[in-house]
Formats: sequence, structure tokens, C-alpha cells
Amino acid sequence: MKKIPVLEIFGPTIQGEGMVIGQKTMFVRTGGCDYRCSWCDSAFTWDGSQKAAVMDAASIVEKLYEKGTNLFSHVTISGGNPAIHPGIHSLIEELRNQGIQTAVETQGSIWAEWMIDIDEVTISPKPPSSLMKTDWEKLDYYINRLERRPNKAFSLKIVIFNKEDLEYAAEVHTRYPNAPMFLQVGNDDLTEKEAGMLRDHLLERYEWLISETMDDARWNDVKILPQLHTLLWGNKQGV
Amino acid sequence: MKKIPVLEIFGPTIQGEGMVIGQKTMFVRTGGCDYRCSWCDSAFTWDGSQKAAVMDAASIVEKLYEKGTNLFSHVTISGGNPAIHPGIHSLIEELRNQGIQTAVETQGSIWAEWMIDIDEVTISPKPPSSLMKTDWEKLDYYINRLERRPNKAFSLKIVIFNKEDLEYAAEVHTRYPNAPMFLQVGNDDLTEKEAGMLRDHLLERYEWLISETMDDARWNDVKILPQLHTLLWGNKQGV
Repeated sequence: MKKIPVLEIFGPTIQGEGMVIGQKTMFVRTGGCDYRCSWCDSAFTWDGSQKAAVMDAASIVEKLYEKGTNLFSHVTISGGNPAIHPGIHSLIEELRNQGIQTAVETQGSIWAEWMIDIDEVTISPKPPSSLMKTDWEKLDYYINRLERRPNKAFSLKIVIFNKEDLEYAAEVHTRYPNAPMFLQVGNDDLTEKEAGMLRDHLLERYEWLISETMDDARWNDVKILPQLHTLLWGNKQGV
Repeated sequence: MKKIPVLEIFGPTIQGEGMVIGQKTMFVRTGGCDYRCSWCDSAFTWDGSQKAAVMDAASIVEKLYEKGTNLFSHVTISGGNPAIHPGIHSLIEELRNQGIQTAVETQGSIWAEWMIDIDEVTISPKPPSSLMKTDWEKLDYYINRLERRPNKAFSLKIVIFNKEDLEYAAEVHTRYPNAPMFLQVGNDDLTEKEAGMLRDHLLERYEWLISETMDDARWNDVKILPQLHTLLWGNKQGV
């Protein structure tokens, strides 16, 4: 069995963002990323500050049951960029065999064939503030493959810090008009320890994002969301 | 054309709750309700404190364009209980002819044939804290009709104030296992004028609801959400 570097397995908790916001789920956070986003809220997955446990699919499933017991039917795979790990294929199969739904989030830079079997795929291309560059051909391929899956869902989700990010998101939205589109408020204060302070600040940023998009006809069909876990628990890891 | 009593037409803003949370939308709030929920956050639709404008579908559409100009492609009909107004049929038709998506929220106590044509139907049966009684036969009929619609979405959404409400919600969830299920934190302070105070209180209540459901296997497949508009704007009407 191919091994997967794992930084965190936790839950059950709620999914705080994106297309299945509010969903009760377990999280598996994999290590390693082909990106280095300037504002990454999970930089510990690639900056060497935390050590990954190298696990095969069977031990990940075992750990999920150890932590989640019978209290889950949904697993979210996040990163880093999970798409770089072929071993996730076996994990998805194992979970599906046990009737467990799966979700994944990736930036859409590296295709993984196991994406086809995931119930909810979130593609989150990174806007200019990340300092990363989008490979549009790779993203085209992703969207094209995902659009052809029967009975499975996918969406685009773009984190917005400023007006330039919003222009980038508009370009993505124009390029893939049929893909459900989510805009998410960027968390620009990853060091604030006090959840209450961060909360007020992020809701102000959320209000800004709402007012920008309400006045723009390019954003008539969009969902605009905050990160609920950050409003609740601030920058705390593992919730 | 059949007339509809209208309390508010506003937007574009975001849908703050439920199955299309975050969606950019216009709101049409109708007057009149067969229920009198103890904690109703829109009691002005039925308690006589605000006067409804009696409008036909064409004038509602006109007003939507007056307020929303070209800045919308989605309209949410809320109440009160919109299901008591047969005139909404023409409104839905008119909006559909213009390529506008529609959503509605009702408690599921009175069937309206025009429900069939709505893109996203939210059924929100009222738990014991509302002091209302559920007519299960009527609710069965609702769910049954909605489940048979092709290419349209619906969900159950139950507002939770206490453990008894949660038991009621579990009963609903068991009765309709295939209906997507949303639990929403009840707003138990409708008089607080300061959005910041209300925000902290409601996020505490949200955390309570999350912890209750995380530890209960009956809630493995559920989405648990706050009201985003209340976190942002408190008890303010028309946002």
C-alpha cells in the first residue's frame, strides 16, 4: 500500500467553509504541497514546522475510527495538496466500502485520478495575493474531468483578500461559467490568539466582500461565505 | 392576477442561512402566517405591527428590478408562510421566464402547487419551543411531493433552541432519512440592538449545538449552521 504523510486526523467537527459548509465530518490533513501561498493557514503542512506521520490507507481508516468511533459518515481530505498522494486512492475506496462519504480540497494544479470517486471536490485556485501562478491548462483539465462525473458534486472556491483577488476570481468564473462558485473571506491575521478579536475583524472583512460583490453584476450567481471554524475557534489547529 | 401581501422587498444581499447559505439573492417577504411561533424573528409579518402592501406578481417583479436593477439572478420568497398565497404561482412563472432562480421557505403546513416549480425549497418544521404542533400527515405529503421533483433541490431545516427541540429534529430526520437535513441555531435574543453582543452570544449557542450533535450518532449526516446575516447585522430588518 502506498504511504501518505499525515499531519492531523481529527473530528468529528463541522466543515467550516465551502460547498458543504456546516457538514459533520472527520478531517484528514495530508502533508506536502506544490504551492507556497503567502497567507497559507496550514503552512505547517509544508514548512517543516510539524512532522508528518507516514501512514497507509488502512492505518488512516483505523485512526479515523479510533478518534471518531461510530460518530461519523463523512470524511474530508485536506492539505497541503492531497492531490500529490496516489495512496489516497485506497483510502477513498476503503471509506466508500464502508458507506462513508468523502470530500477533498485541492488547488487544481495536479490531477489525481482518484478525484473521480470523491463525492464533493472543491477546487480552490489561488488568487494573486497568494503569490502563486495559475496553470490554466491544468485547471481546464480538472474542471473538464469533474464536469463529466455523474451524481457527484464539485465547486470552485476562491479566497479573497483584496480587489485584485476579486478580479482574478471573476476571470475564473467567466472561464468556467457552469461551475458553482464560492468566494471566501481571506484570514489576514494568522497570529491573533484571541478568537473574539479575530471574529470581529473577519466579519468586517466579510461585510466588505459582500458589499463589493452585491454591486457587481458579474457576481449575480455566487455564494459568499466566511470560515465558520475561524469565527468560532480563531486560529486554533485541530478543530 | 391574484394579489399577494408584501412586507419587504430588499436586496441584493446574501442568503444568511440554510441550503443555499451565502447565495446572492433578492428577498420578497410576504405577510400572513398560519403559525404563531413564540420566537418568530419576523413576527411583523403577522402581528399587525407593520402594514403589508397588497401587490400582484407583475408589480412585485417591477419592484425587484427597481431595487435590484441588473444585480440579481436569484430571488428568495420568505414570510410569514408564503404557501398561503396562490398568487405566488404567477410570480414564480414570471421570474422563471426571465431566467431567475427561485427559493422559498415554509414550515410545510399548507401545500401549494407552485412549490413544484421552485428551484430550492426549504421546509422548516417548527420544534416544541415554538409552541406550534406539527401536522405529520401534511408534512409527509410535502416531502413526498418534493422528493419526486426532478432536477430541483429541497431540504429540511430545523431551528434549535434546546435539547427538546433537538429530539424533535431527530424524529423528523428519522421519518425522512433521505431529505438533506440542516440544524440552525435559534436566535433567543430578538431585542438586542448591538450586533457585537448578539454575535458572541449566538456563536456560543452555535458551539453548544455543535457539541450536542458531534457526540450523537443520529446526527452523523447533518449540516449545522448559524444565521450569517444575524452575525453580521444583528436583529436589523431588511438586510
